[in-house]
Amino acid sequence: MNLSTFQQASRDRVNSILSQAINALPEHSEKLKQAMEYALLIGGKRMRPFLVYATGKMLSVQEKDLDGPAAAIEAIHAYSLIHDDLPAMDNDDLRRGHPTCHIQFDEAIAILAGDALQTLAFEILCDYPLSNTLGIKRIELVKIISQAAGYNGMCGGQAMDLAATGQHITQKQLEDLHDKKTGSLLSACVEMTIALAVNITPQSRQHLMRFAKIIGLAFQVQDDILDVVSDSTVLGKPQGSDQAQNKSTYPAMLGLEQAQAYLEDLHQQALQALRALPYNTQMLVSFTDFVIHRTN
Amino acid sequence: MNLSTFQQASRDRVNSILSQAINALPEHSEKLKQAMEYALLIGGKRMRPFLVYATGKMLSVQEKDLDGPAAAIEAIHAYSLIHDDLPAMDNDDLRRGHPTCHIQFDEAIAILAGDALQTLAFEILCDYPLSNTLGIKRIELVKIISQAAGYNGMCGGQAMDLAATGQHITQKQLEDLHDKKTGSLLSACVEMTIALAVNITPQSRQHLMRFAKIIGLAFQVQDDILDVVSDSTVLGKPQGSDQAQNKSTYPAMLGLEQAQAYLEDLHQQALQALRALPYNTQMLVSFTDFVIHRTN
Repeated sequence: MNLSTFQQASRDRVNSILSQAINALPEHSEKLKQAMEYALLIGGKRMRPFLVYATGKMLSVQEKDLDGPAAAIEAIHAYSLIHDDLPAMDNDDLRRGHPTCHIQFDEAIAILAGDALQTLAFEILCDYPLSNTLGIKRIELVKIISQAAGYNGMCGGQAMDLAATGQHITQKQLEDLHDKKTGSLLSACVEMTIALAVNITPQSRQHLMRFAKIIGLAFQVQDDILDVVSDSTVLGKPQGSDQAQNKSTYPAMLGLEQAQAYLEDLHQQALQALRALPYNTQMLVSFTDFVIHRTN
Repeated sequence: MNLSTFQQASRDRVNSILSQAINALPEHSEKLKQAMEYALLIGGKRMRPFLVYATGKMLSVQEKDLDGPAAAIEAIHAYSLIHDDLPAMDNDDLRRGHPTCHIQFDEAIAILAGDALQTLAFEILCDYPLSNTLGIKRIELVKIISQAAGYNGMCGGQAMDLAATGQHITQKQLEDLHDKKTGSLLSACVEMTIALAVNITPQSRQHLMRFAKIIGLAFQVQDDILDVVSDSTVLGKPQGSDQAQNKSTYPAMLGLEQAQAYLEDLHQQALQALRALPYNTQMLVSFTDFVIHRTN
């Protein structure tokens, strides 16, 4: 199976689980339900679910055992996008080529939809059908995702990003920020999958986690570059918004060419981490190329 | 031990656990950490932790096993207050006699502090030292709290409250709304404690859950009454804000006298549910009286 077929299959699979989760909600708060559905199902590359399924396939984890982590991480990601887009945060009107949640609905509902999607991630992890033999791992999945999403991960990274806006920070600080803001969820995808795998050695675990960390960083460097070189139609969000908001970015810090060279260096580091693994890493190699060369 | 001594002891105990949880956070996002601490530790009656500890004592659950549920539910409650107070929601400037989180800090940090406190609740449940024999219950606690906090509970109730503002709704709808918005977390206190208890009969479980449901409702009716008859200094928040915001309330729906009669009816129902239990319910009886007669 090639990358794009597997990407499509992962996307369809997680979308179907997320649709089921939304459809299962009763109708008592119709507008909130609609806003949750809108934010969760309007589009998106589903990179995180892909990473869960691709890593799981490599480690021989059953697909159905990966459904909870894939859906939960996407619910966390969707909630973070809603809240990041709010007027008090990045104040973005466009996301994935559509009006952001608070534009489509209103701010109060957008705040609540984000809140309820965060909770939904935990509800999904508690409820999804997991193989009996892996039942004991359920709380480990909750622990991984909560550490990745909270103060020590994504929320902390977003606060660091806000604090860094308009400030001079070092490259080390910028990397810490992105490691938390973006990297922690991508690492959680791999870490949850490892938790469900049997017989993985500590060395392989280490290489895989290193791969996840590099991919997270590379993703962000390319994101920053795209904000400079792409256009809004392709991006599905306003091009140049980082600069307009005086955000700390790699091109702003290193210059565009140096940022591109750094990205290529990360590319090689990611491939090196994969080469150290005793598995068929073909899909993750293709994914790495995709992350580096993506255009939106 | 009388009510106020036990209340003080519960409050001190949960405050100490919450302080530890905040102090354990590294300094990378100082302002976010301060906002989380501010919202979590500035005050509050700690009714939910009290309910956990009092029910747990009655059911012979070890105090240390109750610490996680007590702290987690309070983190969820604190997050909900931050978000409810935001300009796009209730737009309140005062909470527990102090400036609300977005006034003391700013809106972006308040949104993030709420988000991170929700996650913290789950992190606490995953991490707190629980007796080995009860380890298997940990995921059950996560499940109970996530169902109580999300679309099917608190978030859904808040959305129903927003939708009902300025609208005519029936008493049944008002009760559904409060059952979700306020009742679900109070019920979760009792449900988590039951999950940690051994040898409780299905009948006792049912009576206790009924007690929790009635207490949740009574709490809200008294809340609505206090908004009419109390003053801002005693309340620690603006008196009359329900009416100013055209909220659906019991006094608005039934008139003040009828609302007070309804509260007394709930009082009796709660005591009846407690009388059906084969335990020493003295503390919960006192708590019921307290909820009904509280002045803030």
